[in-house]
This record gives sequence, C-alpha cells and structure tokens, in this order.
Amino acid sequence: MLTFQEIILRLQRYWEEQGTLIWQPYSEKVGAGTMNPATILRVLGPEPWNVAYVEPSFRPDDGRYADNPNRMQMFYQFQVILKPDPGDPQERYLRSLEALGIRRDEHDIRFVEDNWESPVLGAWGLGWEVWLDGMEITQFTYFQQAGGLTLETPAVEITYGLERIALYLQGVESVWDLAWDAHHTYGEILRLQEVDYCRYGFEIADIAHLQEMYRLFEAEAQRCLDESLVVPALDYILRCSHTFNLLDARGAVGVTERARFFKRMRGLTRRVAEAYLARREQAGHPWEGRPGLRRGPVSPATPLHLPLSDAAPAAAGRAPFLLEIGVEELPAGHVSSALQQLRALVPGALDEARLAHGPIHVWGTPRRLAVYVDDLTLRQPDEERVVKGPPARVAFKDGAPTRAAQGFARSQGVDVAELRVEELQGGQYVVATKREEGRPAAEVLADLLPGWIAGLRFPRSMRWDSDGATFSRPLRWLVALLGEDVVACSYAGLSSGRVTRGPRPAGSPDVALGAASDYKATLESYGVLVDPQMRREIIRFQAQTLAESAGGHIPDDPALLDEVTNLVESPTAFLGSFAARHLALPQEVLIAVMKKHQRYFPVLDQEGNLLPVFIAIRNGGSEHLALVRQGNEGVIRARYADAEFFYEQDTRQSLEEFVPRLSSLTFQEQLGSMLDKTGRLESLAPWVGLRLGLSPLELDMLRRAAHLAKADLATQMVVEMTSLQGVMGREYARLSGEPEVVAQAVFEHYLPRFAGDALPATLVGVALALTERLDSLAGLFAVGLAPTGSSDPYGLRRAALGLVQLLVGRGISFSVREGLAEAARALPVPATPEALDAAAVFVTGRLQVALREEGFAYDVVAAVLAERGDDPVRARAAAGQLTAWVPRAGWAQLLDNYARCVRITRDQPRFDLNPGLLQESAERDLYAALLAAEAQVTPQSDVDDLLTTFQPLVPLIERFFVDILVMAEDREQREARLALLQRVAALAEGIVDLSKLEGF
Amino acid sequence: MLTFQEIILRLQRYWEEQGTLIWQPYSEKVGAGTMNPATILRVLGPEPWNVAYVEPSFRPDDGRYADNPNRMQMFYQFQVILKPDPGDPQERYLRSLEALGIRRDEHDIRFVEDNWESPVLGAWGLGWEVWLDGMEITQFTYFQQAGGLTLETPAVEITYGLERIALYLQGVESVWDLAWDAHHTYGEILRLQEVDYCRYGFEIADIAHLQEMYRLFEAEAQRCLDESLVVPALDYILRCSHTFNLLDARGAVGVTERARFFKRMRGLTRRVAEAYLARREQAGHPWEGRPGLRRGPVSPATPLHLPLSDAAPAAAGRAPFLLEIGVEELPAGHVSSALQQLRALVPGALDEARLAHGPIHVWGTPRRLAVYVDDLTLRQPDEERVVKGPPARVAFKDGAPTRAAQGFARSQGVDVAELRVEELQGGQYVVATKREEGRPAAEVLADLLPGWIAGLRFPRSMRWDSDGATFSRPLRWLVALLGEDVVACSYAGLSSGRVTRGPRPAGSPDVALGAASDYKATLESYGVLVDPQMRREIIRFQAQTLAESAGGHIPDDPALLDEVTNLVESPTAFLGSFAARHLALPQEVLIAVMKKHQRYFPVLDQEGNLLPVFIAIRNGGSEHLALVRQGNEGVIRARYADAEFFYEQDTRQSLEEFVPRLSSLTFQEQLGSMLDKTGRLESLAPWVGLRLGLSPLELDMLRRAAHLAKADLATQMVVEMTSLQGVMGREYARLSGEPEVVAQAVFEHYLPRFAGDALPATLVGVALALTERLDSLAGLFAVGLAPTGSSDPYGLRRAALGLVQLLVGRGISFSVREGLAEAARALPVPATPEALDAAAVFVTGRLQVALREEGFAYDVVAAVLAERGDDPVRARAAAGQLTAWVPRAGWAQLLDNYARCVRITRDQPRFDLNPGLLQESAERDLYAALLAAEAQVTPQSDVDDLLTTFQPLVPLIERFFVDILVMAEDREQREARLALLQRVAALAEGIVDLSKLEGF
Repeated sequence: MLTFQEIILRLQRYWEEQGTLIWQPYSEKVGAGTMNPATILRVLGPEPWNVAYVEPSFRPDDGRYADNPNRMQMFYQFQVILKPDPGDPQERYLRSLEALGIRRDEHDIRFVEDNWESPVLGAWGLGWEVWLDGMEITQFTYFQQAGGLTLETPAVEITYGLERIALYLQGVESVWDLAWDAHHTYGEILRLQEVDYCRYGFEIADIAHLQEMYRLFEAEAQRCLDESLVVPALDYILRCSHTFNLLDARGAVGVTERARFFKRMRGLTRRVAEAYLARREQAGHPWEGRPGLRRGPVSPATPLHLPLSDAAPAAAGRAPFLLEIGVEELPAGHVSSALQQLRALVPGALDEARLAHGPIHVWGTPRRLAVYVDDLTLRQPDEERVVKGPPARVAFKDGAPTRAAQGFARSQGVDVAELRVEELQGGQYVVATKREEGRPAAEVLADLLPGWIAGLRFPRSMRWDSDGATFSRPLRWLVALLGEDVVACSYAGLSSGRVTRGPRPAGSPDVALGAASDYKATLESYGVLVDPQMRREIIRFQAQTLAESAGGHIPDDPALLDEVTNLVESPTAFLGSFAARHLALPQEVLIAVMKKHQRYFPVLDQEGNLLPVFIAIRNGGSEHLALVRQGNEGVIRARYADAEFFYEQDTRQSLEEFVPRLSSLTFQEQLGSMLDKTGRLESLAPWVGLRLGLSPLELDMLRRAAHLAKADLATQMVVEMTSLQGVMGREYARLSGEPEVVAQAVFEHYLPRFAGDALPATLVGVALALTERLDSLAGLFAVGLAPTGSSDPYGLRRAALGLVQLLVGRGISFSVREGLAEAARALPVPATPEALDAAAVFVTGRLQVALREEGFAYDVVAAVLAERGDDPVRARAAAGQLTAWVPRAGWAQLLDNYARCVRITRDQPRFDLNPGLLQESAERDLYAALLAAEAQVTPQSDVDDLLTTFQPLVPLIERFFVDILVMAEDREQREARLALLQRVAALAEGIVDLSKLEGF
Repeated sequence: MLTFQEIILRLQRYWEEQGTLIWQPYSEKVGAGTMNPATILRVLGPEPWNVAYVEPSFRPDDGRYADNPNRMQMFYQFQVILKPDPGDPQERYLRSLEALGIRRDEHDIRFVEDNWESPVLGAWGLGWEVWLDGMEITQFTYFQQAGGLTLETPAVEITYGLERIALYLQGVESVWDLAWDAHHTYGEILRLQEVDYCRYGFEIADIAHLQEMYRLFEAEAQRCLDESLVVPALDYILRCSHTFNLLDARGAVGVTERARFFKRMRGLTRRVAEAYLARREQAGHPWEGRPGLRRGPVSPATPLHLPLSDAAPAAAGRAPFLLEIGVEELPAGHVSSALQQLRALVPGALDEARLAHGPIHVWGTPRRLAVYVDDLTLRQPDEERVVKGPPARVAFKDGAPTRAAQGFARSQGVDVAELRVEELQGGQYVVATKREEGRPAAEVLADLLPGWIAGLRFPRSMRWDSDGATFSRPLRWLVALLGEDVVACSYAGLSSGRVTRGPRPAGSPDVALGAASDYKATLESYGVLVDPQMRREIIRFQAQTLAESAGGHIPDDPALLDEVTNLVESPTAFLGSFAARHLALPQEVLIAVMKKHQRYFPVLDQEGNLLPVFIAIRNGGSEHLALVRQGNEGVIRARYADAEFFYEQDTRQSLEEFVPRLSSLTFQEQLGSMLDKTGRLESLAPWVGLRLGLSPLELDMLRRAAHLAKADLATQMVVEMTSLQGVMGREYARLSGEPEVVAQAVFEHYLPRFAGDALPATLVGVALALTERLDSLAGLFAVGLAPTGSSDPYGLRRAALGLVQLLVGRGISFSVREGLAEAARALPVPATPEALDAAAVFVTGRLQVALREEGFAYDVVAAVLAERGDDPVRARAAAGQLTAWVPRAGWAQLLDNYARCVRITRDQPRFDLNPGLLQESAERDLYAALLAAEAQVTPQSDVDDLLTTFQPLVPLIERFFVDILVMAEDREQREARLALLQRVAALAEGIVDLSKLEGF
C-alpha cells in the first residue's frame, strides 16, 4: 500500500525523470498551486518552464470541521506545469499514474471536460477533470491566460488531487483515515489544525481586523508594484486573497464588495504579471531555446495494419476518402457540434471542388472527428470555359490579329488561332475557350482539408502551442487517405499520414491504416466505435438491458444519452449499486448527483421510484470491470455521503434561517444580494397577486413564499448543486413546517425552467414566478444588462419567455409594462423609461417568437403585437381570432375598405370631427354607423368584437368612397371628411394593427 | 553532479527509509524549519515524532541583494526531528551524507560546539554545527526547551544547510551558480525574488503599515489563544515574527521595542505550546508507545582486539584500571573542565575507598573521557574497627554477659566472647572489634563509578533521553575494565563493557578491548591520541613545522591551541593557502575570520605580517588530505569574500554615518540604545578628561572619539565578528579621515580587553576607556544588574577590573566614587546612593583581587583598601609602601604602640581634646609630638609620610602608657587622655587602616 508521503515521493521522482524542475510549496497560504509564483508568474512569456511541486491549498469556505470524509479547508495538490506543451502531456500524465500502480488497462481513466477560471488571478484555461473509475483525481488544463494577459506560449497545468488518489490506492473512505506514513494517519497529523482553522474561519476571526489587514496588504502590494517588485507584490496579493477568503467564510463579504474585491485583486495581479514580463524582457528571456522535457519512451511499434474490411471495391477511378482529425478529448457538446458542422460543410465543398462522390459519413468520438466519403473520384473532370476578350474591331485589323488579340491569347494560354468572335452583350467580342484539366482529387483535397479543420468553430477554443492555431482541444494527429494513398497536407504543425491511434486503455498505440476503407473496421477491432449513432444505440441498448435486469427502467433523458455517447469511444455499460439507506435522501438529490457529477443513468421502478443502483458507461472493454465498478461505487458512496452531510447540515435549521445568509450571495453588483432581491420579491409579489385575483389567504401564502423563495440558495446542498434550487427549497420548506402551498410555490417559482417544462400548478406559484421574472427583467435592464446577440449571462431570454409562457399558459391577462413599472419602484437604482420600454419590447420579442413557433402567420403576429404585445394572453387570443378571420369570405373586402380609410388619412394631422359639416348621405350614414360601432368596441375589445362590429361598415365605406370626394376644395369640408375616416380607422386602435397584415 | 533538487530528493528518500514522516514546507514565511509546527509543536510532550522536510527560511536582515555568494535573505533548510533520540542520531546523519556521496573517510567531518536559542520561540538546545572540511553544513541540536517549556522528551534537531552542501557537491563558489536542475541555476530561479525582497525589506516596506500589521496579527493570535486554537495562533505569531524581522531590517525597531517585541512573541508562543500540550493530553497522547525509527544497519563487527601494548605486567594482586566515558563530541572547553574535575576527584576517591594504586592518568578527546590507573589493587585491605557498646556495668552482671551485651555482640556480628571492656571517655564500656574484610576492587569501583560520572559539572548540561540524566552532550558508551575484567556498572541507561569505539572517519567501529592495558595503544592504532598533552604537543609541532615550511611562524595563542586540541581525536595538520589579494583586508580581520570561524592558525612572517596561508588541523589521518585542503580553502575563500563584501559596504560611508544606526542596537533595555550610550560618553568624557588633565586640543579629540567610539558596532563587519569592535572602528575612522588620535582612541577605549592585554597608549584613549567603564558600571548597577555569583552578562567584572588596571597601570589618581556619581548624572534612570555605593564597592573588590594577585599580603591589602579603596593608584602605592615597612626593624613596636592607642579608645565616644587638662609630662610630650605630626600628615598623605611621621611618636606613646593611667578616676582627666590617644590614632585616617593588619 502506498502511503500518502510515498505518493508524493514517487510523483516527484517521476516528474524529475521527465525533466521537470522539482519545486517546493509556497511560503504563503494559497488557494491552489496555481498561485505559487512557479505557476502564476512562470507561465507568462515565451520561455520554457517545466516544474512539479506539492502545494497545500487553503480554502476556508470548504472547511467542515473535519466531519466530512473528503472535504476540508486544506488539502494537498501536486502541481505540474509543462510549457511549452510537450506534444504528449496526457500520455506523460497517464504514465505518472502507472508510477503509482494505476494501470490504464485495468481502470476507466477518462478526460472529462472541465474548464477553469480564477477571478482573482485573471486566469483561465480549458481542459478536463480526469476520472479514475468515476472519481475526479486530477485537473488537467491548457492554461490560456494569466494576470489578465494571454499566454504567449500556452502551458499545460496538471493538478493532482493527492487525497483522492490516496483514498483510491489505500482503499479507505475518509481522508482522515489515510496512512500518511507507516505510523500516522492523515487525520492524526492534520485533524487538530483542520478543526482549529474551521473554528477560526467560521467563528473566531475578527472581521474588522481582517478588513484592516486586507487594506494593509493591498497598500503594500501597491507600494511594491510602484517599485516594480514582483514577488513581494504577489505575496501581498496572495495574502489579500486568503484574507478575502476568510472574510467570505465568515460571511462578511457583501455583494458590492465581492465584485470590487475581485476586481481589485485582478488589477493587482495584472500589474504583477506585467512587471514580471518586463523583467524577463529586460533580462533577454535567457531560457529561450533551452532544451525542454526529455522525450518519453517511444510509442509502441506501428505495424502496417492489414485490411480488415471486405468493402466492395470502388468503382473505377474512384476510391474511398478518409479524413481523421485526432484530438485530445473534446467536450461532449463540441463533438456533436463539430460533426454537425462537417455534415453541413463537406457535401457542398466537394461539389464546389467538382469531386464526384458517393455517400458521405461524418463520424466522431471524443478523440477523433472523421469524414469518410465513399467512391470519391480520383480526379476532377476537365472543364471548358469561354473567356471574353477585347472588341472584335480592336482585335482584328483586316482579318489579322492585332497586338491586342495576341496579348489576350497569350494571357489565356491559348493559340491566337483559336480565338473566335462572338456576339456578347450586344457587341462583337473576341473570345477564347479555355480548357482546364481536372486536377487529381488528392491535390484538390490537400488544398481543401486545412480549411475544413480551420473552419470548425467551438463555443470556446484554445491554443496549445505557440504557433497560434486554435481548436476545442489540441490536435494531435491527422489521417488523410484517398484509397491507399496519403493525401499530404498539414495543419497546426501536424502533417497528415496514415497513422491513427488506438484507444487510451490500450495505451493509444499508433495504428497504420493500409487504406481508407480499413478505417472503421480497424478501429472497431480496437473496440472504438467511430459512428456516434451506433455508439448511442449500443449504449442505450446496454443500459436498458441492465436496467431491466435490475427490475427497472431508465427515464428518458436524451441529453444525458447524447453526452455519454460523446464521452466514450468504446462504451461498456455496467450496473453499480449503492446502499439502500441513501434512498432516504430526496430522489431529486440522488438523481442530480448521479447526473451532474457522474453522468450515470438512474434506474426507476414502475412507480417511478429510484432503485439503489446506477448504470455507468465505461470507456473500454469488459476487462477488469469489477475493479471499475468497485471504484465507481466508491465514488457514488462518497458523493452520497457528501449529500447526506449537506442535507443533515441544512436541516439543522429551518429554511427561514437561511434567508439572512442570502446577503452574501450576489444577485448583481448594482442590484445587490439575493437578500435584497428577496426583499423586492416580498414587496412586489402582493401587487402581482392582487392583479391575479388571489384571495387574502393566498396573498399571505404568497408573501411567505416570496420570503423563502431564494433561501435554499444558501443551503449547502444547493451551493453544491445549483440544479437543485427550488427542489431543495420545497423539501426544506416542508421539513420546516411551512404550509404546502408555500413549499410548492418556492419550488414552482422557478417554473418553467426550460422549454417544455411544466408550469406552476398553483396560482401562488404563478404569482411568485411572475414576480421573480419581472424583478429580474426590470432590474437588469435598468442597470444596462440587456442581453446582447451572444451574451445573456443572467438568462433573460429564458426569463422573458417564461413570463410569456406563464401568462399565456395560465390564461392570465396582464400588462407587462405595468408589471415592469411596478417592479422598478423597488429597485435600488433608477430605471429610465427607455430601459423599461426596452424590457417590455424584449418580452414582446419573446412573445413574437412563441407565437410564431405556435404557427401563427408572421403578419398576424405583427398585427396583434403592435397593439396587444403588452398582454401576452390577449395577444395570443387576438392572434387566434385574427387568424380565423383571414380565410373567411369577405375578409379581403373588409381589409381593403379598412385600409382605404387608413391610407388616405395616414399622413394627415388628426382633425376634430364636426358632424355638422357632414351633409351628404354617404357621409351621414357612415357617421351614424361609426357612432354605433364606437358604442360597441373599445380598446379593450377583442379582435372578434372589433371585426364583427366593423363588418357592417364595409358597404358604407365603399359607398362613401364612391360618392364623396374626400379631398374637397373647401378646407373645412375636407377636414371633416378626413376626421370621419380617421375615426373609422381608429376603431382598431388598442386591439389590432391591421396595417401589419399582408395585402393591406 | 548532484543538482540541488536531487539533494533534496535523496535526503527525503534517505530519511523516509529511516522511518521518518516526510513533511512539507510551511505555508507561512518562517525564519527556520524550527518554526514549522512539525517542529515547534511536535517536539512538545511525550509522544514520539520523527519527521523530515524542506523549509525555505526567510531572514530579511541577511539579504545582500544577491550580491553575496552565500548570504541571502532566503535559503533552504532541510529539517529533521528525531524524538526520542534514537541512540545513534549522529551515525544516521553521517549515513545521510553518504547518501549524497559524502564519505566520512574521505573528508574531515566534525561536530563543533554550537548552541542554539530562539528568543521568539522561547526555545533552546545544545549541540553542534557540523563541519565538512571546515565548512558549516548542518546544525545538529538536542532540543531542550520550546515555547518556554522544558521538553518532556528531548528531540534531536538536524538542520541541513542545503545551499552549503550543494556548493560543496557541485564545486561552485556562489549559490547563484548552483545547478537547481539540469537546466536552471539557483540564481536563475531565485535571483529576481531575492533582489526584490531585499529592496522591499530594506527600502520600500512602509513602516507604519508593518507596525499596524504586527498589531493586528498579535490581536488575532490572542483571539485564537483565548479560544485555544493552536495552529491558527501559531500562524499569527509567525507573521508577527516575520513582520518584526522586516521592521528590523528596515531599521525601525528601537531598543525598548525590541525587547518588548521578543517578550510578547515569547509569551504568545508559550500559550500556544500550552494549548497544544493540553490538546494532546485531552486526546490521551495517542502516539505514545508507537514504534520509532527503523533500526539502522548494525555496527561493524566487533572483534576482540588483541593486546597491542607491551605494558609491564602488573604487580601481583594489582591490575591497571580503565574507565572510558564515551560521549558525543564535547565542547572543547568542556573536555578540559571534565579532565580537570576528574584529576581532582579520582585520587581522593580511590584513597577514600582504600584502593591502593599507582600513577593516575586522566585523558580525553572530544569523544571520550578516560581515567587510567596503573597498578590498582584488586582488593581493599581488610580493616579492623573498634565499636563502642553499652557501659560495662550494664553489659556484665557478675562477669556474665547480660542480654544487652548479647544484643550488642549480635548487632555487630561478633561472638559475645570477643567483647572487651575498655576505658572510653572516662567510663568503662564494652567494645567489639569488628573486622571488615576488604571488598574486591571491582565491586567497590562498580559502586563508585556512576557517582564520578554524575558528579561532573558543565557550564551548561543537557538531557538527551527522557530518563533525565544530564551531561554536556549525550553519553553513548561506558568502558570499565580492571585488568581483563569488566567492572559492571551502569549509568544513564548505559551498561559498562569492554567495547570502545574507533574514530568517526573510520565509521566509529566498535572495538572490544582485551584488557585495560590495551586501551591507549589500541586507540592509537586507530589514530586516536587520548592523551591531550601529547595531542597538543603534536599539533603544535606539526603546525610549527608547516609554518616554517611556509617561511613563517605561528603567533603564540595557547587558547586556540587548547581549543583545537580538544576539537580532534586524530590530529593531522595541513597547510592551506588563500589568494594574496585578500591581504588587502586589515590583518586583524583576516586573523579574526580564521580563528573565530575556522579555528585555523594564522602564519606570520618575521615582520609580523600575515602570509596568505593558514594551518588547519584535520580530524583524521593524511588520507585524502588534498580533498580536505581543497574544501577548507574554499571555505576561507568564501569567508574572505564575505569579509570583503562587508568591508566594501562599510567603507561606502564614513564612520560617522554609522552613529545614527546605533539607535537600533540595544545596550540595555532601561539604559537605551548604543546611540543613547554614545550620548552619555560624549557628555561624561570631557569631565573625565579634565580630571586627567587633558589639553583643550586633547579634549576636542576626546569628544570626537566618544562620538565615534561605538559607531563600528553598526558596521557589517563588526555585526558579523564582534571581536573586531574597536579594530574596525580604528580602521574605518582612519579611512574616514579622522585624526589619528581619534582613530586610536576609538580602538583603545576597549583596552584592556582581557587579562594581560595592553593598556591604551594615548591619554585620550585612557580617558575614553575610563568613561566607557564608568558609564557601564553606574548604569547597570543603577538598574539592578549587578553581577551575581554565576551571572555577569554585561561583563561588569571585566569592566571594573579594566578600570582598576587603567588607573593603576597609567598611575592615575582618580576617585571611582566621584566618577560613578558623575556618570550617574547622565543616566536615563535615577541611580540610588546605595546602587552607586555598591558599584564602588564592586570596583574595590576587583582592586583587592588585583592587589592580591600582585602578591600583596591579604592584611596589607585590607589595610590600604579600607582607606584608599576608592583611588586604585593610591591604594596600590600605599600597599607597596606598607609592605616595605612590615619587615623593618621597629615595625612591630610601631604597630603595637599605635594599636594600643586604637584599642583603648575604640569603644569610646569621640572626645574633644582639652590640652589644658594634660598636666603630666608624658602627656604633654606626646601632645606636642602629635601636634607636630598632625602638621605633617593629612588624609592625602601617603603611607610613607604617615609612618615616617609617626615613628617619633612611638617612644612617647610607650612612655605615656607607662606613666599615665588613662582611665583616671576624674572624668575630665580621663576624657582628655582618651581624646589625646584618639587624635594619635586618627593620624592614619584616610591613609591606611592599620587595624586590619595581622598582629594588630
């Protein structure tokens, strides 16, 4: 059994043998090894830097008084920085695990998307958490930015969680039981200080003292920076950071402070980074060009792989084409997106390149994106093209070609004798017929392929080498084969070839392909299923079969299935179990843990109750499956122990007691904390409730629910798993003895959470849900945070759409503008009329989308929204009624006559109608009918009322326009007539703007 | 070549294999690995604890802007704690060096006394610095106290200086050039931060901010302690300590603050220690009884050593006796002291034990103390003893023994028939003659020997194991042989045997002795010279021979020779050299460096100029001497580079510019800084100068010299080597262009520094030397710091003796009391008359010692001191004159007659003399002679004057006592006669108190 200290010693030795510098923990309390200057400074600039060290990492807020088996305010990281990327950092990492006795062929070791960002350090990177049989043991990141500066040379950062690895290797369940050495457990060494640090951070630390320290540290950091002192300045920033963390643990960081703290620390870090870079620059970057890491052992031999497939021989002059883009593990979503992009791109690109082809297959796994084209022609067809030259009269003098003709022929590469004269655009011109020979497909593809790769777009891309190419994750190999031949091209420093790589559990061996046609079968022989559809189907089938064997079924969850499909290359499902006692936790919690942390499939019985089992998909075959299962079961056990701890901690107090703690959770800097927001909900909700006609009792419930709505955000369970917000609020409200209506409303006020989600069942829930959204919209628009094309960090689209769905779905007529105005009254900042108007318009925009998606015609939607956009339910009703009118007989006539009234008066000022001037009968009849109609419809009338009322006017209008000259010579006469028509046109005002309709 | 990181990795692995826990550097800035809780806390209490770790150690004041090759504000320690003492910690340490490739048989590795104390941590220990070929590479300490608490179980603390070891292993001269790994030097990694930290600490840090931080850290430490939080409290103390160090480097710590800072930090540390102990106590000391370190490899085989000596066979019934006390390296002074004690003790002890013996030899080296006795009897002689019993009349009734007699006989173990009656103390008593058989010497010795060892006293002793035995350094083996047989005894957990140990370079092999007589020769065969006289002589001879070979000689320095003798067991001298360019430094500096740091012998040419060579004494034979020389030369080179750096730094400014910096050097807490003291010297010196009759020009020089006297204490050179105080002051004064008289006085004011040292040559120097001592005596007595029997931390004995030597040596009549009173006027604290009186008496006490040592009779000294003790030069003169009188003819008569006058009047009140009442001629003659004498002598007269004047009175006094009845009936008559005699007796007043003389 490896002791904790032996793990460290072995990792030090392993990385030393790789050629890294071995460094020491830092002399300040840091939150992570990243903060050690050996990382945060050395990753800057162009110089190579490879280093490994232990780092005790302090996160006061994570303290659990040593009561939790694997969460504590201090833990040990083992940090490795490789800069530049040595080309095979994952392999080197996997070999380091082997140095600890963890063999990749016996375990399920996976690289699962996880990106990283530090607001204090102004740093971020993309990468993975590494899973060992389901347990996160390492953070693996391609560092992109530090100190707010883009890294000249991206660095690989590998951060081992030493306790996690030791737990696994020692087979114990609590860090406190780990053997540190032969004589002492981890707990024996560290428990006392852990408890003391927790007491200090949570209970004892003097807030005023800490604030004062922060101020002094910051001031000294500034002094240092004014003198360009790098490391002393960093030290003070680290002290600021730790002091901030203590203040935070102590619950003493208000909302506005938090953002300001981060901003200040980030600003200081940036200055440190700049000062460091300047110093290295002055020194002339002395390490540039130094040798980097020692080469690792050479990859396994690369035998030419014999054809495995009995694919039908290609048609003459044709061959299958394969492009495989080899990558480090892509995020699951990126796999789908890249495949979609390739599917969209390739057919057109081949056609445009005049390369005839058979069916196109686009395949992919986390480690490879592949385009496979059947029967691709080996050569473009030849092409003839007519090129227009100078006018004939210039080109030929007396039938003989002039210098102009000769020049043209030469420029086109044809003989002057081949020039012809043709009539073009009404003139006589010389033309040449150019014959372009088709190029070999291999040549054409070689030109095209780099563009295909470069054209792939990801939500977030990264650099991994200093040549600046970007991709979702690093590219590591390229296969491009046309038949048996390599299509020679290169991209991002890689040259295409015929060598692909086998799966990770097999050690990613190099595998040379004899021909493109061997691709799929060859990888299959290694257990890699490149076709995602097939993989998805196999996973679904395996999982379903296992679920049935356990007497249950897997609830439908296509998103999870999609994700899992793109997390593995060689799926093998297995059934794990957990202790039934965990079922005491709310089922939502158990399922959330499975899905969020582990991507396991839950198994439900016929009544929909969770069974104490899970289904996980391992990447690899069925070898050593028992070991993998055991590991995964250990992980879920620990996760559930965590959850139980949270649950137990949370339920030691009533839900209401969490409300004050919302003061330390930011809603938005200017809008204050979640506690501030709670206050606003409490003041706005009764107003909304009255609008919705709630009873006094319901209003009481609503007020209570508003008070508690956000409380669960301060519970440990929700802090841990945000997706449980509302769910835990309901649970804890019930346990706290709140009325069921209140508990339900706490849950329901988040509804609908996504497209297709349920709406609140209770009116109290609806009122609270509306209140929450009105506050968010009014507030965030007021402070200028309206969503932009690409950015919607507060989810306002969702909020606005939810508002619409709530009102429409529950048939509630409600003025969004009024709601927003009322919401604005409670805001801590003034909301300009323009801002509120923009918010209302934004909601109307969502309504428009919703109505369009429901199938209403564009013009109908526009017509009703122009007048009823503020009241979604009435707009929806109007759209329905208007839609029904359109196909009716007489509609065209009605619309046409109404339009005549509108059009002739549209550009006129509004006149008062003097009925005495209406003398003609057509005038008088119309006027009389108008008065009758005006008595029937108001701006509150619905479309049916309006149109039904309007219908009798149609013949009168028609007669009016026949009999009456509107634009009479006499001004008074003219204005009276216009005023009459204006009154007619105005009948629709507030109801529908028929002018938006087609045919108007 | 071992890189720096490889050294760390190997040490970790080595100690891990020994069974220590491998720990990590601390997350705070510490001054030493000791401050890591893994030491400062874990050494407390009874539980075993073995740990090893790296510790970057920060000492802002040592920063040199990376300009110095081996001094910097941050360096790396490798810290090992072994608790309890495993019994062979030195061996384990030496094997760790072997793990780094440093073989003890190829190098001179030595354990040189060096004790350690931390005022902040309330901690101390005794031990050594370990020298590798003259270079200090490790601190090795038996930790005795921490947090102000005595350690229940002493701990071994081994602190490797990693840079030093690396310098050696890599053969480079500057730490900045060390290879950290294969690609980077130490300087490349650390130089930037080193320079920045220096700039921060010395120039940039905001003093007010640091002070405020200190206050906050202290307050938080208090809060933590009020809640018994151990490690968080320690963290804040460490922050206090580092902040204090920064303030200190910044020159911002005043005198009174310094002591207060230390006291406060020590107080906090004590509370932490107590809190920690309480927590472990509560936990029930869970580690007690855990297995400790794995056993090291077994010692080399222990062959029975064959007799090597041809010692004469012992007389019949007699045999040589050997006691060898095997120890870890004793301080050189302790060796001498222990040998002296044994020499004083053993003969009497053997005699008292009735063990006849031949010559006694007491030998010793740093590792062994030996008593070797020739021809010790194997058996005590039998002894007869007469024991007094009951009175005869009780013992016998009618000639028959009573029960009393029988009881007595039984109690004495004799037959009742053997009782006799003897006359004792004037009565008849029964007596028994008890015959006690002599016990075997082995038995007697077995009883005695533990007492001999236990009785050895050292200036400072230590415990090393929890059994509580104390000694100078740990005892490791005992040999006790009488002839061929072991004298079985035990002490401090050791049992005596016949196995001694060879020298360290040979690996300290166990060596079994066949007989006591083999001892000296056996060890000699290993190169160990146990006889210190022989060792001393060999060293002297070797060194002298080498010096001559280099064309020079070694200045006489018995103290150094004694010390070196007791630093080695197997001396081998060698000649090393250094670059002649270093001779540009003052010779005193070069020699001080050699002696203080290295215990080298300097070599002078005939003119007394230093040659660029040195002689060092290696412990071991002549093998690999070139390597050892090379190492030592490297060390002295580095030392001289250091000294040059100091010299260069110091001479960048004038000496005067150092004066203000004296404000940060404490003289004594209540008496202020050295700057305060300088101020007092400046005010007192002119007064002293006037007393000494200095010219106005000389007075100017004196004032200037007083101003500069202490300035060199603030120079780097003197900070580094205190012994150069005055020497550097003179040097720097000259370089600063001060008048030669001033420069000389700055040097001379320290004279005489030790018994036999020169006195100042200039009167200005004398005046300043007196001034300095008067201020110290007055001040330190005023604040209650008079020396006690064992403690004289301020060297007041030396100061007082110096005062005496100055006055006597230069023949200056001077009232010490007046001088002290004047000095007191400038003190910042009031000096009570009692205190000043005590100071004066103390000086007189030194004078007494000096006069006695000069050979004056006790009574003569007493007689003159009684009247002239305040003025040493006059007392000395008086003693000389009085001594000359004593042997003269007529002295007894003179003294007798004077005594008669004194004696008869001594107990009387003082009467006024009414001459009119003196009517008898004997009275009148005496009176007339008295008047004549009184006209000759005054209290200022010297003894010769007095006695010469008195001589004519002698016959008159004789006649007076014959003719006159002093105690006449008539009161007036009587009082007149007594008054007359009183006036005669009073002639000596103020001159000499003849009543103190023998025979008076």
